[in-house]
Amino acid sequence: MRYGVIGTGAIGGYYGARLAQSGQEVHFLLHSDYEHVCRFGLRVRSPQGDVHLAHPLVYREASAMPPCDVVLVGLKTNNNHLLARLLPPLLHEHTLVLLIQNGIGVEEDVQRMFPTARLAAGLAFICSAKTEPGVIHHQFYGSLNIGNYSCPDEALITRLLDELHAAGVEAKTLPYEKARWRKAVWNMPFNGMTVALHCQTKDLMTNPHSRRLIREQMLEVCRAATALGVEGVDEAFAEKMMEMTDRMIPYSPSMRLDRDFRRPMEIDYLYTRPLRLAREAGQPMPRLEMLEAELRFIEERDLA
Amino acid sequence: MRYGVIGTGAIGGYYGARLAQSGQEVHFLLHSDYEHVCRFGLRVRSPQGDVHLAHPLVYREASAMPPCDVVLVGLKTNNNHLLARLLPPLLHEHTLVLLIQNGIGVEEDVQRMFPTARLAAGLAFICSAKTEPGVIHHQFYGSLNIGNYSCPDEALITRLLDELHAAGVEAKTLPYEKARWRKAVWNMPFNGMTVALHCQTKDLMTNPHSRRLIREQMLEVCRAATALGVEGVDEAFAEKMMEMTDRMIPYSPSMRLDRDFRRPMEIDYLYTRPLRLAREAGQPMPRLEMLEAELRFIEERDLA
Repeated sequence: MRYGVIGTGAIGGYYGARLAQSGQEVHFLLHSDYEHVCRFGLRVRSPQGDVHLAHPLVYREASAMPPCDVVLVGLKTNNNHLLARLLPPLLHEHTLVLLIQNGIGVEEDVQRMFPTARLAAGLAFICSAKTEPGVIHHQFYGSLNIGNYSCPDEALITRLLDELHAAGVEAKTLPYEKARWRKAVWNMPFNGMTVALHCQTKDLMTNPHSRRLIREQMLEVCRAATALGVEGVDEAFAEKMMEMTDRMIPYSPSMRLDRDFRRPMEIDYLYTRPLRLAREAGQPMPRLEMLEAELRFIEERDLA
Repeated sequence: MRYGVIGTGAIGGYYGARLAQSGQEVHFLLHSDYEHVCRFGLRVRSPQGDVHLAHPLVYREASAMPPCDVVLVGLKTNNNHLLARLLPPLLHEHTLVLLIQNGIGVEEDVQRMFPTARLAAGLAFICSAKTEPGVIHHQFYGSLNIGNYSCPDEALITRLLDELHAAGVEAKTLPYEKARWRKAVWNMPFNGMTVALHCQTKDLMTNPHSRRLIREQMLEVCRAATALGVEGVDEAFAEKMMEMTDRMIPYSPSMRLDRDFRRPMEIDYLYTRPLRLAREAGQPMPRLEMLEAELRFIEERDLA
């Protein structure tokens, strides 16, 4: 199919490059890296095999891009307001927009901007970072859970899965809410805590006090999701996330990187939104509310 | 009366110096500052009037000190095991030991070491710090709440109050549990949060997110105290503590100073102990449990 990538960074760049390498037609929207990628191409360094696209289809302006069958959105959610301008040129009547972003409530807001667009959530279990212009350093994992939000064309989703598999990407579908909330079980503790304690995942897992706290925070997410009627986000899943994180090398989640580079943190969709839903469902998440307050404090201190 | 001071620092030094200045006989146990105080005396710089004791009664060894009527203990609670050696020389049959220390459970443990000793809690509402050898910088407040733990001689407590008043120290008695838990309402949020967010009280009060969090943490303490049967530790009191803190200049509580100077933090009595009591009473304090975990993580990171 024809793919478009909005936000050619650690996430959008990785999946787009894998698809392009496997022979798909992939159109990349670039911003600061445009000149560099024009000259040197787009690289992925990965334990699963490096990729070098010498002459990718790159654009500086979305308006120059063609309508696509699937658009991968890899923007930070803080920039989703830009989609009002960036997305329309890439849409045809049946385009699937895959929002490969963290947090809760993303599709709801994008759907409000584009009431007839066909949306799905992409939950990337991947450790990846853009380390220099045009170079994405993929560290490990890489699977993609897809949660269909508003696409009536199941065949399109199936075809997307097939093409991802052919590109060497593990991918599967999950019910939309389950996909988003399962990801939140990992994201909500680790993204914020690595910022609050200025550390990496491994540090939190090896200290017994922070380890217990991380598990309690995971269980807060599970209880909230269950209260919201989401199935399969339970203690057993939290335990799986603990074990998976134990097996990871020391890792800095995206929010920690955002903080280190003094980029805005994705507090709204990662914390504020799910915390509000949990409160409304009568199942507040006090430790994660505290974490949100700490993150807001840390971010706003810079502005003071 | 004859007073002894164990722990001649920001707290013990302040109250001891005020009592000595007013004419009481005060014996000070000193450690690292002994030589300095012998030569230059003991100073308090205070908006309520400076004190300079040119020739205070100072000791390097507790064994050289006389039995006293009242012993003010100003040690950090982390050092209370030292009382086994330091306290006996100062005790006669009727000595009152005033533990001017933060936290919950202090008297219980000291009583176990000295089953017949007469103990009271001293809760200092004071902003004070030892800024250089032999010099205590008193910033503001200074009142002392006294909670009788195991002294059958009420007249002795009354006399202590009289002599404190004569020394210019605001002091009053409160029921023991109420005195300790009221102090915890302020201590538990501010001591830890100024460490976790590396800030001062004013920063926490002016940012709306941390301000809300501080209030929620105060209410956690109030609910736990109420569940434990302690009266008068309620929302109205928490509100008073918020207002008092609003009126304070930017302040670094003792735990923040301990952390800055890489001294051990008083996590056990300030957090672990009250958190356990609250859980046992069926009224856990989740935000303060999280704060304890953060503090343990911060402290143990140094040792790793």
